[in-house]
Amino acid sequence: MKVALFGAGRIGKVHAASIQTDPRSELVAVTDVMEEAAQALAAEHGIRAVGAEDILADPSIDAILIASSTNTHAGLIEAGVRAGKAIFCEKPIDLDLSRALEVQEIAASHDKPMMMGFNRRFDPNFAALKAALDAGEIGKGELLSVTSYDPAPPPVSYIKVSGGLYRDMMIHDFDMCAFLFGMPQTVSAHGACLVDPEIGAAGDIDTAVVVLSYADGRLATIRNSRRAAYGYDQRVEVLGAEGQLTAENVIENTVTKSTAGGVVSSKPMHFFLERYMRAYTIEWSAFVDACVDGKPVTASIQDGVNALALAEAANLSRAEGRPIQVTSEMTGI
Amino acid sequence: MKVALFGAGRIGKVHAASIQTDPRSELVAVTDVMEEAAQALAAEHGIRAVGAEDILADPSIDAILIASSTNTHAGLIEAGVRAGKAIFCEKPIDLDLSRALEVQEIAASHDKPMMMGFNRRFDPNFAALKAALDAGEIGKGELLSVTSYDPAPPPVSYIKVSGGLYRDMMIHDFDMCAFLFGMPQTVSAHGACLVDPEIGAAGDIDTAVVVLSYADGRLATIRNSRRAAYGYDQRVEVLGAEGQLTAENVIENTVTKSTAGGVVSSKPMHFFLERYMRAYTIEWSAFVDACVDGKPVTASIQDGVNALALAEAANLSRAEGRPIQVTSEMTGI
Amino acid sequence: MKVALFGAGRIGKVHAASIQTDPRSELVAVTDVMEEAAQALAAEHGIRAVGAEDILADPSIDAILIASSTNTHAGLIEAGVRAGKAIFCEKPIDLDLSRALEVQEIAASHDKPMMMGFNRRFDPNFAALKAALDAGEIGKGELLSVTSYDPAPPPVSYIKVSGGLYRDMMIHDFDMCAFLFGMPQTVSAHGACLVDPEIGAAGDIDTAVVVLSYADGRLATIRNSRRAAYGYDQRVEVLGAEGQLTAENVIENTVTKSTAGGVVSSKPMHFFLERYMRAYTIEWSAFVDACVDGKPVTASIQDGVNALALAEAANLSRAEGRPIQVTSEMTGI
Amino acid sequence: MKVALFGAGRIGKVHAASIQTDPRSELVAVTDVMEEAAQALAAEHGIRAVGAEDILADPSIDAILIASSTNTHAGLIEAGVRAGKAIFCEKPIDLDLSRALEVQEIAASHDKPMMMGFNRRFDPNFAALKAALDAGEIGKGELLSVTSYDPAPPPVSYIKVSGGLYRDMMIHDFDMCAFLFGMPQTVSAHGACLVDPEIGAAGDIDTAVVVLSYADGRLATIRNSRRAAYGYDQRVEVLGAEGQLTAENVIENTVTKSTAGGVVSSKPMHFFLERYMRAYTIEWSAFVDACVDGKPVTASIQDGVNALALAEAANLSRAEGRPIQVTSEMTGI
Repeated sequence: MKVALFGAGRIGKVHAASIQTDPRSELVAVTDVMEEAAQALAAEHGIRAVGAEDILADPSIDAILIASSTNTHAGLIEAGVRAGKAIFCEKPIDLDLSRALEVQEIAASHDKPMMMGFNRRFDPNFAALKAALDAGEIGKGELLSVTSYDPAPPPVSYIKVSGGLYRDMMIHDFDMCAFLFGMPQTVSAHGACLVDPEIGAAGDIDTAVVVLSYADGRLATIRNSRRAAYGYDQRVEVLGAEGQLTAENVIENTVTKSTAGGVVSSKPMHFFLERYMRAYTIEWSAFVDACVDGKPVTASIQDGVNALALAEAANLSRAEGRPIQVTSEMTGI
Repeated sequence: MKVALFGAGRIGKVHAASIQTDPRSELVAVTDVMEEAAQALAAEHGIRAVGAEDILADPSIDAILIASSTNTHAGLIEAGVRAGKAIFCEKPIDLDLSRALEVQEIAASHDKPMMMGFNRRFDPNFAALKAALDAGEIGKGELLSVTSYDPAPPPVSYIKVSGGLYRDMMIHDFDMCAFLFGMPQTVSAHGACLVDPEIGAAGDIDTAVVVLSYADGRLATIRNSRRAAYGYDQRVEVLGAEGQLTAENVIENTVTKSTAGGVVSSKPMHFFLERYMRAYTIEWSAFVDACVDGKPVTASIQDGVNALALAEAANLSRAEGRPIQVTSEMTGI
Repeated sequence: MKVALFGAGRIGKVHAASIQTDPRSELVAVTDVMEEAAQALAAEHGIRAVGAEDILADPSIDAILIASSTNTHAGLIEAGVRAGKAIFCEKPIDLDLSRALEVQEIAASHDKPMMMGFNRRFDPNFAALKAALDAGEIGKGELLSVTSYDPAPPPVSYIKVSGGLYRDMMIHDFDMCAFLFGMPQTVSAHGACLVDPEIGAAGDIDTAVVVLSYADGRLATIRNSRRAAYGYDQRVEVLGAEGQLTAENVIENTVTKSTAGGVVSSKPMHFFLERYMRAYTIEWSAFVDACVDGKPVTASIQDGVNALALAEAANLSRAEGRPIQVTSEMTGI
Repeated sequence: MKVALFGAGRIGKVHAASIQTDPRSELVAVTDVMEEAAQALAAEHGIRAVGAEDILADPSIDAILIASSTNTHAGLIEAGVRAGKAIFCEKPIDLDLSRALEVQEIAASHDKPMMMGFNRRFDPNFAALKAALDAGEIGKGELLSVTSYDPAPPPVSYIKVSGGLYRDMMIHDFDMCAFLFGMPQTVSAHGACLVDPEIGAAGDIDTAVVVLSYADGRLATIRNSRRAAYGYDQRVEVLGAEGQLTAENVIENTVTKSTAGGVVSSKPMHFFLERYMRAYTIEWSAFVDACVDGKPVTASIQDGVNALALAEAANLSRAEGRPIQVTSEMTGI
């Protein structure tokens, strides 16, 4: 299976490496608006740096991996559909929900595998938690809690074009809730600027709590902060009728030091690429499974729309200070 | 310091034992509407079982400990004030906020120590967390999370007279939030009946999430369930500008068994009396400190009113499906 | 059941408190060569401070608790036997094995309960480990490891009269091995003075490793140090045919602090009295069970001899640099 | 840097993959007495399967990686020295200490990097522990404990040619002790056959404890078992003058399940290749560092001799039932 990559930046490089670890897939071309970046990545992997149109027009390329900037995602998905390619796209589809719904409609008729890059679904820890939950090991789930703190906020320049915390950061956690509990009925959002006043000045928040209510009474809470001094904090907890499942942080090493000053153990892995390295590899193999073996994709375009719809509802909820119903208009279903 | 006890039930017995562990205080009398219960406890401790009036009229009695049923608390506090006694009262002041506000007004002029039995403030783990937070060890607190699950729901007959989950169970967690973060600006409550339909039929919920928003942007979440198959789950977590503090469960023992089936460690202590046994003893000593050494009480009548006000706001929030402002009318300040 | 206490020092006070927690036993008298100490403890408990002979001659006293200095233990056990008392004696019987064997012979014909104060057998954690082992939860035990480090060495003046590390400190761990695995066939001892040269100058060691070999091939290791900067380290680990059991340290509290500097959790409880407080209470109740209900004692005089025999063998092993057989001459059985 | 691989078996495949992960090294050829295995591995990596002599004679090959059967190691090291290659060799040099000493002598004059495959030195956890120890974070080390249990014994057919537990299995732990504490003065070995009588019938043991004594009084214990029902158990613990360092197991995932049956967390990684996968990659990079940048090797031929000398001493100690001195004749230094 021959693959071309859109985007030779940080996340593009991660995907390029993942493509090479699966013997069933082969990276053959890369494109980037920054031509130098494309050339460098092409040289490293012994492949071609080409134009976007070359990729779309090349019938020997089976799949495209979209890891370019967010504002290109929707257009590239549509172009990929027209070109008949299997498509793997980094989240989000678009920062605008109505645009995402358009893409979803176009994608609906596509007969090749399409997958959104919700990498956390493929983290072995969260995947093991979901497997245990689905297997009924704690009975029916009742209370879900997702904790997701970044080690430090991104530059304010990034914040300004990010679409805001709910769409940029919490979108992963909305997807985690949808992954584990499905789509909720209402969204109640709270948020504040506590970490950096510049973020507030840019119109965004850096600290947030959202509560999701489900039609059958289940509840989920999401906690986000743009800053955790001790590292990247990524935990999930589900209380069920017969017990509780927790997925704790992945730590840097297993060494503990006990002295008169206390018992000191390792911090969580600090950087998201390191923390989710295995997830990226497993994620890619899942996409190859879909392309090669016809297995269903784990994170569909609809999942991308759903997470975006929850982010949109959260924005509205916080603006209006009230819970917002999630409607079929928002999700297109 | 001579002490008389109102209430010879389960919690009364715990307090009777605590009184005896502090060499500065002496239990001298007990009263209960169930005369047999009073007689039994009196016999065990070699003290008198008497009428409530005898206690209030006896000038040699310095302090009263009110551990009788909730509906007697307000009246007994008032009577204790009139009789000039130091007063220790189990939570809550009353199920009715306006009644609690009346008591508070009467209590305001009392010149003897008065303390509410918010035992969790005295738990060595939560106390250590608060000490570290107040010492600035993680910088300014930003996100607080209180998890509080009972091992199993009480009988529905109890539920019916309990005042509902927010006032009966979450009141402890409202107080924990007030203890750590102070009084919030708004209360947003969610809840459902997931554990036992009988509880729903009785007009109550058994599963709840509440979000508290503070004037300066800080946020707190409380999660409650009437059922945790693995035991009594009591945890607190605070994210601050420079780190995080967590207080984990107290476990039954430190034994771990590793077999082909997994690595099995001990469950949290199951029963609240066992879990908080040390807290009850420390709590009583704090009250004696106030009586004997003039130290300030850790949990005042105002704290009792505050927790009740948050519970009242939660009830309203859930009924109306919107965040509720905490006003000075609610708290009397 | 009326009890008299020999010894009003640190450990005597602990036992006095334990006696009072069991409603079936009553402390009635205390004696000590330091008359003031006896008077003080007597005053605290509202009992008599008397002479040793008075206690032994008083037919109303059912049991004696020997918590006086080690050199008095053997004589008091013999006197207690002659006086027909139930006897609880702190470890060791004597520093001299042959003297202990004499006591054992005299004690053999005594028809009242006799128990040695091996408190660690009653620690809820080690007791739970033994219960799981005896229940076959990890199959047959194969490798036992006991880790036992004191927070800091005692004064050298104490070291000089202590009988040496094996008899004074490791005796508890020899007993733990005997408790869990029974009596070994050979003892191989290693030791060094690493903590304090003064200890070496006094002819003792402060760091030691002993390996016990059992007739059926099982092995046990004991590690001792007189110093652990982080506190009192008390752990047991057993590998069996079907898994492993570990008993970890009891920690001061459950609070964890995560900052840029690391994840810091609580140290083990520092002081042996605090660490084993529950064990002392449970231990005493076990003795009362034996006296009142005729239950077998958990730590017999023979157990006291056995632990001393292993200490003696360890001394010989280290002196001669070879494994030493444990013979029936050493244990009297 | 061009590399040729001797041995296309399980461990050879692991090394082949490691060679490919470092951009500075390139696998160009493989050889194996099982020609099919060599062909398969060559096909997978797009390289040549050739004869051993071809490799040694090829001047374009800079380094050889010896991962063939143990009995070929010594001869191949010698051949590699004669051919002027950099040499990476899996442990052990040979099962026979005198043969290893011959190799060491020949190797002494070699001017290319030579490294033994003691992979555990490169495990990030043990490496972090050593870094903390060497940095003085717990003061001077005093007591070292290495726990190393395999999940299940190898086939008895393997046991028969393995050289015995001390040389085949514990050799890793001897090296870990040498890595952390240097070479000891005496070795005291204990062992038994508890897991499988067939192993005993083959003249070997499956359960062992060894104590190492150092000239300055430090002590180290090693515990081995061929069976741990819960997985591959690999831990290290060092007590020092100012605290303790522990390296705990690496677990399969971070999910914990709490139910009425207990709190169940993940087992240690079961398979050594999975457990030490990162170590193999880091180990190879360290060898490339030595070849390319002239950095010193972390595990030298001398380290290989040292570990073998300790195994030999352990065999003698167990046979004669006494501690054995480690002499310069044994280690060649």
